[in-house]
Amino acid sequence: MITGKNYIGNQLSANGNKVFKTFNPLLNIENQWEITEASTDEVNQAVELAAEAFKTYSKISGVKKAEFLRAIAEEIETLGDELLEVYSSESGLPKGRAVGERGRTLGQLRAFADHIEEGNWVAASIDTAQPERKPLPKVDLRKMNVALGPVVVFGASNFPFAFSTAGGDTAAALAAGCPVIVKSHPMHAATGEMVSSAIIKAAEKTGMPNGVFSNLNSSGIEIGQALVQHSKVKAVGFTGSIRGGRALFDLAAKRKEPIPVFAEMGSVNPVVILPEALQKKYKTLAKTYSNSITMGAGQFCTNPGLIIGVKSEGLTNFVNALAEDIIKEEPSCMLHPNIIGAYETNKTAALSQKGLKVLAGYEDDVKVNHAKQVVTAVEGDIFLNNPTLHHEVFGPFSLVVQCDNINQLEQIISNLEGQLTGTIISDGNEIGKYTTVVNALQSRVGRIIFNGVPTGVEVCPSMLHGGPYPASTDSRFTAVGVDSIKRFVRPFSFQDWPNELLPEELKNENPLGISRLVNGKNSKDKI
Amino acid sequence: MITGKNYIGNQLSANGNKVFKTFNPLLNIENQWEITEASTDEVNQAVELAAEAFKTYSKISGVKKAEFLRAIAEEIETLGDELLEVYSSESGLPKGRAVGERGRTLGQLRAFADHIEEGNWVAASIDTAQPERKPLPKVDLRKMNVALGPVVVFGASNFPFAFSTAGGDTAAALAAGCPVIVKSHPMHAATGEMVSSAIIKAAEKTGMPNGVFSNLNSSGIEIGQALVQHSKVKAVGFTGSIRGGRALFDLAAKRKEPIPVFAEMGSVNPVVILPEALQKKYKTLAKTYSNSITMGAGQFCTNPGLIIGVKSEGLTNFVNALAEDIIKEEPSCMLHPNIIGAYETNKTAALSQKGLKVLAGYEDDVKVNHAKQVVTAVEGDIFLNNPTLHHEVFGPFSLVVQCDNINQLEQIISNLEGQLTGTIISDGNEIGKYTTVVNALQSRVGRIIFNGVPTGVEVCPSMLHGGPYPASTDSRFTAVGVDSIKRFVRPFSFQDWPNELLPEELKNENPLGISRLVNGKNSKDKI
Repeated sequence: MITGKNYIGNQLSANGNKVFKTFNPLLNIENQWEITEASTDEVNQAVELAAEAFKTYSKISGVKKAEFLRAIAEEIETLGDELLEVYSSESGLPKGRAVGERGRTLGQLRAFADHIEEGNWVAASIDTAQPERKPLPKVDLRKMNVALGPVVVFGASNFPFAFSTAGGDTAAALAAGCPVIVKSHPMHAATGEMVSSAIIKAAEKTGMPNGVFSNLNSSGIEIGQALVQHSKVKAVGFTGSIRGGRALFDLAAKRKEPIPVFAEMGSVNPVVILPEALQKKYKTLAKTYSNSITMGAGQFCTNPGLIIGVKSEGLTNFVNALAEDIIKEEPSCMLHPNIIGAYETNKTAALSQKGLKVLAGYEDDVKVNHAKQVVTAVEGDIFLNNPTLHHEVFGPFSLVVQCDNINQLEQIISNLEGQLTGTIISDGNEIGKYTTVVNALQSRVGRIIFNGVPTGVEVCPSMLHGGPYPASTDSRFTAVGVDSIKRFVRPFSFQDWPNELLPEELKNENPLGISRLVNGKNSKDKI
Repeated sequence: MITGKNYIGNQLSANGNKVFKTFNPLLNIENQWEITEASTDEVNQAVELAAEAFKTYSKISGVKKAEFLRAIAEEIETLGDELLEVYSSESGLPKGRAVGERGRTLGQLRAFADHIEEGNWVAASIDTAQPERKPLPKVDLRKMNVALGPVVVFGASNFPFAFSTAGGDTAAALAAGCPVIVKSHPMHAATGEMVSSAIIKAAEKTGMPNGVFSNLNSSGIEIGQALVQHSKVKAVGFTGSIRGGRALFDLAAKRKEPIPVFAEMGSVNPVVILPEALQKKYKTLAKTYSNSITMGAGQFCTNPGLIIGVKSEGLTNFVNALAEDIIKEEPSCMLHPNIIGAYETNKTAALSQKGLKVLAGYEDDVKVNHAKQVVTAVEGDIFLNNPTLHHEVFGPFSLVVQCDNINQLEQIISNLEGQLTGTIISDGNEIGKYTTVVNALQSRVGRIIFNGVPTGVEVCPSMLHGGPYPASTDSRFTAVGVDSIKRFVRPFSFQDWPNELLPEELKNENPLGISRLVNGKNSKDKI
């Protein structure tokens, strides 16, 4: 049952006096549920509860936390089709996508459960004492990762499951030992409440402290600001726009005690097609990229918004084929009238730039809130000198930059802002001739792809989802994969600490059997 | 020979028109050398050169970088006694300390050389492709740490070798593959130039690109500000005051592209003496702490500035013994008249606080620029309610807080700002009764010590030198030990990248024989 209330720990609460409704973009009507915004009091209650819960939750064993994460996954599954229907009614995304994204979300929770159950992630390091060392004796030092404190997670509009309530940020923070307060995304607040109920049930079933999780509704920015400014909040996870992410980063940096904000923001995901590939593979490439550009109405942070090549017969053939293919794709419904509104505004702004040509745009009538895709082209020198063209147009939009030569192409790449991904399309070994292009691209991105598409972010240990600013606020961490747990921990050293009082991970006996760095060598042995 | 010039890469340069001199606090006279401040042009030249050097230096093998680091250590040794004399003349620190600190600095450089030669630090992770996976094939992903870009290092006043020109920050950044621009500390600019000359010689001998290292002189704040604001600088290392560190952090956070500032700042390093320990060991403790408080004129960031106990006969005995012992310690020369001036000012400010009692202070005449130690005491409730008393007095100063009971002691700890270290003094097992005190202390510090002193920072992998703000600006990283390399790297993913074009660390053949995470399991095997 959807109540529209907030979860302050395991209590439903609705003390605020502002209400709002979510929107069904497919039917173009408001959804029925009345959502009550959290009040400032409720923000404080949730954070105080989280800070109290932190004292015990941060010390709970990996095995117990893993039980909790797996129970969350189970409880989400138990919500069954109703959850999928609410998801679709608040996002316009089809059932297949809902099933897939739920699968990914459950997979993430279980991957973190395995990760913390295995236990190596704490990066235990032990340097034993040398009391006889000259000129000074050496003390015993033992270090491991410990949880940072309460974490605030902002749900993302474009992934109501995988980057929201029980998404990657929440799973990573809970796995690390940090209580989580979710600032629910206003576009899918009912989905958020259902998922929250699953988390609360799982917490109760597995005996987690009250306050390990809270969920706050809000349609404005005040609740999010209050959370980021609260002195007991120790880190923030965010997925969304550059403007939103930067505002939170700035707030957090101005605090008396600054805290890290991990914001995964915009990206145009440049794709460089090398000359021989253009010549030989332009037909297949046009098909592949028509599909990648329009997939999910282009509402992915890894959507290929920029395709770059050197002028040639190959490039001309490619843009013609792309123009032909892109209009064959079926337009999709966007998440919300505000999202399609922003798409239209940004598209119009881009199209009004001098020198931008429309290669092809979908022109037939479409259903309400469905986005018409468009691909455009521009000369290299015009692109270089117009920063507006470097900005993301969130939606099924792409821009082909036609360079005079490879030097100009390299210059364009070097002048791009930071990106989540960069792609090189090469015919066999021709890439070997373009080392400087590859190096330039590498310095601007977090993940580099060979002969593929940037859409599709594999959840695995070797994934890096992030990149130089403004792709993310901190290129040193990933937002996807088990290594994202590193965002929410700090290393901590015990000096000459009595063995019986050390955490299990650092005891001489190595009761958890984890891999540790002992006097500089990896070992699972006892000491 | 000391020229007083800057190093812009391997060129001596002195285009600025401001000059200054360093000061010999022992003799109370200016040193002879005329130091020329860097100009804004020289700042830009150094950064541009570093950005250019980054392109090649970031891709140089660990073995070659290790050669460079070892050559720096050798060249510093070659400078022999002259370097030690210049060091002492600019710091007032005795020859024994100079020799010890040089040893530590050479040790750090060599430890980093071993670390990058071994190569495991890149944290290579490989997930191989599964082309047959359903519903979607799995791509090949390979991740490793890569260098961030040019790093600015601010030399510290209190460690002219170990935390300055070729100190921990510089060694870590160079090891990571980042060119370094040092903003030399104005109190020991000549020492800085000599050490810089060693680095430049080493760079030339081992074939490193020009610009891998620069050294800029400055007696004000403008040069440092210009460096932190330069768009091609990607990270900052700093050791010094909270005011200085926070100012740099704020500047960096306001940039168009924010960059990380790793500032290791102030700490009062609370020491909790438990009741039985006070009763049984007060005499030894008083001696140990008299020594720790006055060591090196208290000019260590881990100096014990705060000692906390519950009122008892034991505590009374302890403060009496401490008062007796502390005045027996020989006062030492401080680094600079400005430092002793600040010590006197801060001491006076503390002593003027209501309720603060002087337990003992050195009263005999001392040589010029020598600091008179003082220990003070205050009641728990007065301390709790006066934040001024929580601030560091940099120098041989300590405050004993006398609590009414253990609850008040715990409350005091919970209300402390972030600290580098916390120490618990326990008689045998009594610590087992004070879990909440230990947990409270753990949440405020980066390193917790059992029955020891906070001074003395062992350089080893398990050391964590840092802590919650304001001990450092980022508690997630250490400033000491090989793990400090993690401050200057970001993880980077290659997707479906051709084996022959991958870095050695990620190639199927594992030519470097490093330990890698392959499909989730640690392995040194080929793929």
